[in-house]
Amino acid sequence: MTRSAGAVAAEGPVAADAARARSVLTRCRGLVRPALAEAVGTLHPWIGRIAGYALGWSDAAGTPAPGASEGKGLRGALAVLGAEAVGAPGESAIPAAVAVELVHTFSLLHDDLMDGDTTRRGRTAAWRAFGTGPAVLAGDALHALAVRTLAEAGGPASPAAVRRLCATLTTLVAGQADDLLLEHRPWAGPEAVPPEEYRSVAERKTGVLLGCALALGAELAGAPDESVTALDRAGRHLGIAFQAVDDLLGIWGDPALTGKPVGGDLRRGKKTRPVLAALADGGPESRELAALLGRSAPMDDRTAARAATLAEAAGGLAATRDEAHRHLEAARTQLRAARLHPAPARDLEALIGSLFHRSR
Amino acid sequence: MTRSAGAVAAEGPVAADAARARSVLTRCRGLVRPALAEAVGTLHPWIGRIAGYALGWSDAAGTPAPGASEGKGLRGALAVLGAEAVGAPGESAIPAAVAVELVHTFSLLHDDLMDGDTTRRGRTAAWRAFGTGPAVLAGDALHALAVRTLAEAGGPASPAAVRRLCATLTTLVAGQADDLLLEHRPWAGPEAVPPEEYRSVAERKTGVLLGCALALGAELAGAPDESVTALDRAGRHLGIAFQAVDDLLGIWGDPALTGKPVGGDLRRGKKTRPVLAALADGGPESRELAALLGRSAPMDDRTAARAATLAEAAGGLAATRDEAHRHLEAARTQLRAARLHPAPARDLEALIGSLFHRSR
Repeated sequence: MTRSAGAVAAEGPVAADAARARSVLTRCRGLVRPALAEAVGTLHPWIGRIAGYALGWSDAAGTPAPGASEGKGLRGALAVLGAEAVGAPGESAIPAAVAVELVHTFSLLHDDLMDGDTTRRGRTAAWRAFGTGPAVLAGDALHALAVRTLAEAGGPASPAAVRRLCATLTTLVAGQADDLLLEHRPWAGPEAVPPEEYRSVAERKTGVLLGCALALGAELAGAPDESVTALDRAGRHLGIAFQAVDDLLGIWGDPALTGKPVGGDLRRGKKTRPVLAALADGGPESRELAALLGRSAPMDDRTAARAATLAEAAGGLAATRDEAHRHLEAARTQLRAARLHPAPARDLEALIGSLFHRSR
Repeated sequence: MTRSAGAVAAEGPVAADAARARSVLTRCRGLVRPALAEAVGTLHPWIGRIAGYALGWSDAAGTPAPGASEGKGLRGALAVLGAEAVGAPGESAIPAAVAVELVHTFSLLHDDLMDGDTTRRGRTAAWRAFGTGPAVLAGDALHALAVRTLAEAGGPASPAAVRRLCATLTTLVAGQADDLLLEHRPWAGPEAVPPEEYRSVAERKTGVLLGCALALGAELAGAPDESVTALDRAGRHLGIAFQAVDDLLGIWGDPALTGKPVGGDLRRGKKTRPVLAALADGGPESRELAALLGRSAPMDDRTAARAATLAEAAGGLAATRDEAHRHLEAARTQLRAARLHPAPARDLEALIGSLFHRSR
């Protein structure tokens, strides 16, 4: 049943792009990581330990444990590439890169708690490992540290960059609020969640931070407004595509790679794009899926597998793959409009393509 | 057993000052409230409802319910007075006042949850009324909105003001972390909490935001660095005195006025200044108090009353009152050093005096 997002998305061969994307991420992490570690090192030691765990740098006891639990550093890389794409050195984006990585980690800490998610990247979620209160406090610390890092970056564009980050944070929180409220909406009927509403939540929960990352890198480098705006828009579309791929992986992804249980989003009754699209179809598979989701008993492996098959048969996979394709294309259109320097633009293109073909 | 802080602190008659303080708070709330309501009005409606409840403006259903549950607006008033004291109109401090009131409300939302406090100003704490996740999210929203409000204030001093607020936020979080860790410390022995450590936590948990409020008002108004620094220091001392009065009220305050149960801090085994001082005394009352606190059964009314009597007999009340006096005097010394305009300086003096004589 499970597949990689690449197989799910069924695009052409991308081996060269994948290698370039990996090397871009590695290079950007190398640029950003020392400053990120320095910022985290200023935290209260106890909070710093929780932050180190949430960043995937150490285990719950604080022992360094680099590996699969560390994030890809996508947002930091987008900030670096945003600067390079407008002709500035990647180093100029480091405060922006640190800020967006901290915001991302803060939001994972608090969202996992709110969503009741007990695992993250194959490990116990921080709120389960350290307790609710400490996880809330560590999130607060990273939130504050993110803005502080950018506010102390200096330079003529720093105040505008801080305003952009603050606007992003308020939008992120509103997006998370709407996401939590989706839980209480019915699966079908006039109160069901229409695709455009789901897309708007995805843009605010995921897209605004990717857009902010790209835009901040360019903004700190003094790029013209049109380029900054185009990069912001590209990131928002990318976020919608990213969420669509997440939704595909959440149902059809390989648990060994995603670190999430088989059909995890289906078991939890999570309202994701594939399920909403499949239920809107109304055919026999759609109705059988609705009946499975309507049961009060928790889904076993067999039922979750059946639900995934039905969601695919009712068009949920295809609709979500189309959504991802469409917004990936829209992101590419915006990047072309931003008139970027060719080499970093190719890096960005490779990175974006790889997000579509990721398996975790 | 219960007394007002005024009676506990045993200062001279202050009727005129109390009236002046009340009128200062009312005037400042009148200045700040419309902008605060406007800022809260930009939040996601669901989050706005939780924020309205946390601010004491409405009940849990969102119905306006002004009254005793509303905060005094102390931090906003300090920002306004900080501006007026350096010769600027109070209006110039409104973004600072809104920001510090939002930070205060954010910290109450998250701290009540972390501390397990189920009531706040005589009502159910927000995390019990709305759930943990929503309370975390509402706190995040107010945190972000606070910085955004100040970042969008404009003016030449806005970036420095944002940096000050960010530094305050990181210190507040570290102070809360240390406060949570105090819980796990023993009551006596070499690992017991010494007074200077308790004071440092009080400064970071309470003092920095009061100092920030006073300093931000002056800073946005373009005051010289020496005045801004003196105001910041005054606020920090004020915060230590404020916490000492809080500790007195938490044991000897009138539950009808504080909205907290009789001897609440003693029942919860909270490490406060009076108890730490009483236990450090080592005499017979001190030893009896230690025995009561060491019991695993929850304290009934009679035991809590006995513990309060013992804490007073062992010098806990006097030591804490002295601490409050000392830091109130230190705050006054800093205010004199700041060379403030006389009329707003008198307002500040009245307000500070009233904090010492408050009963809730």
